[in-house]
Amino acid sequence: MALVVQKYGGSSVGDANRIKQVARRIAQRREAGDDLVVVVSAMGDTTDELIALAEQITGEPEARELDLLLSTGEIVSSTLVSMALKHLGQPAVALSGAQAGIGTDRRYGRARILKVDPQRLRRELDEGKIVIVAGFQGITEEMDITTLGRGGSDTTAVAIAAALGAERCEIYTDVDGIYTADPRIEPRPSKLPEIRYEEMLELASYGAKVMHPRAVELGAVYKVRILVASSFNDSPGTLIHSTSSGQVHGGSPMMEQRNKVMGIACDADVGRITVRGVPDRPGIATTIFEPLAEAGISVDTIVQNASVERLTDLTFTVAKADLKRAVEIVKPVAQSIGAPEVLADTGLAKVSVVGAGMQSGPGYAARMFRTLFQEGINIELITTSEIRITCIIDEGRTEDAVRALHLAFELEEA
Amino acid sequence: MALVVQKYGGSSVGDANRIKQVARRIAQRREAGDDLVVVVSAMGDTTDELIALAEQITGEPEARELDLLLSTGEIVSSTLVSMALKHLGQPAVALSGAQAGIGTDRRYGRARILKVDPQRLRRELDEGKIVIVAGFQGITEEMDITTLGRGGSDTTAVAIAAALGAERCEIYTDVDGIYTADPRIEPRPSKLPEIRYEEMLELASYGAKVMHPRAVELGAVYKVRILVASSFNDSPGTLIHSTSSGQVHGGSPMMEQRNKVMGIACDADVGRITVRGVPDRPGIATTIFEPLAEAGISVDTIVQNASVERLTDLTFTVAKADLKRAVEIVKPVAQSIGAPEVLADTGLAKVSVVGAGMQSGPGYAARMFRTLFQEGINIELITTSEIRITCIIDEGRTEDAVRALHLAFELEEA
Repeated sequence: MALVVQKYGGSSVGDANRIKQVARRIAQRREAGDDLVVVVSAMGDTTDELIALAEQITGEPEARELDLLLSTGEIVSSTLVSMALKHLGQPAVALSGAQAGIGTDRRYGRARILKVDPQRLRRELDEGKIVIVAGFQGITEEMDITTLGRGGSDTTAVAIAAALGAERCEIYTDVDGIYTADPRIEPRPSKLPEIRYEEMLELASYGAKVMHPRAVELGAVYKVRILVASSFNDSPGTLIHSTSSGQVHGGSPMMEQRNKVMGIACDADVGRITVRGVPDRPGIATTIFEPLAEAGISVDTIVQNASVERLTDLTFTVAKADLKRAVEIVKPVAQSIGAPEVLADTGLAKVSVVGAGMQSGPGYAARMFRTLFQEGINIELITTSEIRITCIIDEGRTEDAVRALHLAFELEEA
Repeated sequence: MALVVQKYGGSSVGDANRIKQVARRIAQRREAGDDLVVVVSAMGDTTDELIALAEQITGEPEARELDLLLSTGEIVSSTLVSMALKHLGQPAVALSGAQAGIGTDRRYGRARILKVDPQRLRRELDEGKIVIVAGFQGITEEMDITTLGRGGSDTTAVAIAAALGAERCEIYTDVDGIYTADPRIEPRPSKLPEIRYEEMLELASYGAKVMHPRAVELGAVYKVRILVASSFNDSPGTLIHSTSSGQVHGGSPMMEQRNKVMGIACDADVGRITVRGVPDRPGIATTIFEPLAEAGISVDTIVQNASVERLTDLTFTVAKADLKRAVEIVKPVAQSIGAPEVLADTGLAKVSVVGAGMQSGPGYAARMFRTLFQEGINIELITTSEIRITCIIDEGRTEDAVRALHLAFELEEA
């Protein structure tokens, strides 16, 4: 008998009938012998409806009050799932995030979980109950209710799984797993039976639509095995884990035998800034990047060319929405250090090949570059991590690049 | 600068526009200099809609889960009122019942307030905020959410006023005060500028539609002055209090000068049981009434005739809904004590004359009996308390009785 944490998203509990279906799934799993904690999102569009209600009152709802308001959405769905389970004869109890011991900081609307006090959860489990937890929410030390922001319910589930030492955390959603490429771009993507946390994070630029990176990161830190699967069918899904020995449950292929490239990611949200003629001396990078960090602008890819006559070009990317502000910050800095020019452009995309085995096998980068060359796609920038090779290319060629790389790395569905 | 607790009912916060109106009223009051705690009910039909949602899931929603579900209704309205106040530039904070320190027992759906921990309320008030509290709810020692049942938000408001030692508690509703008789029966009722707790409780058989007796009782115990007034106009309302010295704020008439009869109450929910031939010996009343109490049946009027040859008739009334069950309980008891007959009938109503000054002025009972006699209304039973004279009469004559008594005691609108 294992302890399992499950999470069902908003579409899975969208109305009374779906709630009854989810309850039947949960009840079957319970009858199979597992102890269950089930985290639920708000029903369907509830959160959007509550926000619309607040906006009828005021254009700028206070973050604290908005969180208290929004937290009711998941409380409603949790109580209904609990009632549906009891109707099926299964002992169950619904807990708000506060009751489930989800302690957060005070960053309303995007609170981070600081701790999970599992006392109440354990007591209810010990009494043989299925525990239904309202996701997406927690409580501060001052007893104020917070919401966790994007990926909040996934994060609730992973945090509870970590705190209880659960066998695994199962994220049920409207897709049935993680694919080798975005199915909207690549017509023959393969579903991955398993993937490592790091790979999942690198794939997040499309994977985020399946599961938010913050929940994956939390899972990586606490080694929580996460299954992503469909709430509408019994397809096996994708297991996110850290196992490198091939000792994975559920009949997945041995890690050593698997294709070292796990998938192709792409992201069109790229704004590029190039600072021309930067003096090549210590501390220059700090001078440029510190003001950006202070302004809350995340810098993604950074490339510094080899220095010519003690001058270099520094190129980096930011989210498109931050581009204008970033240029305004960088221009005076560039002037102050004697760099003559700051260039900004968009119309770019990142395409990445991701896989944990790549660093031990040569030739992956070469194959990627050759593939793009054969497609006539120019590479603007290249960056690599231990498990990823990223090329920045013309945005208009993104789909061609993904399809060509998917083919070149033999990722098509078998 | 006084501390005042206000309560607004569901129709007062029925939609975004009404919430904005209520916020303007609250803001004006704040600008006039008072510190405010505002208790709100759920918006319009929210509670009924949540119950309907639960009933789509199961015919018998678990009481604990139902309470957690229903508690969201008042949280939603409290956050929206707080947002509306901030939009008007007034510092405000919304608190759930739990956050406001409303501690209750575990009787889900009809919990009683055991204590109010006013720490958080005081802190927010000290910071200059208007505190908006979700009514109708509390939290148990085990951190489970409860709802208070009928009259719950009124009770929340009075309990908070008591805990904070507030100047007074103002209940805003869709009627503008307490009248000398039900306006649906008596065409010319007078609005009472003030009334004592005890009188209000005796009038509760119609007054309950304005304010629930439990909140009045709590007010009486803690001497919380309660104003009942309209949330839609500025009519002065009725002050419920215990003052007997005439020192009432707001220009009310001196107590000594006022009419000693405050109003005429009536109630058609009367089931009568008569046990014939009860042996007149000690302990008999216990034998009959204890089993009824154990079955949760409230006994109202009890009349025992003078004993004839050590046998007496015992008559009492119960709610019509309890009549059948009460007879089933009483019949075997009657048999065991040798009482030959148990009679049950309905078709009766109680008509009461209520007023705290009556015991010091003779002739009130006589005037009541004479009035009913002149109307040709037969009196089936008579009971009195210190501030009330009640006659049980034919239900079909209720309205005639109310109108005749209203006239006889000179209660018409001036």
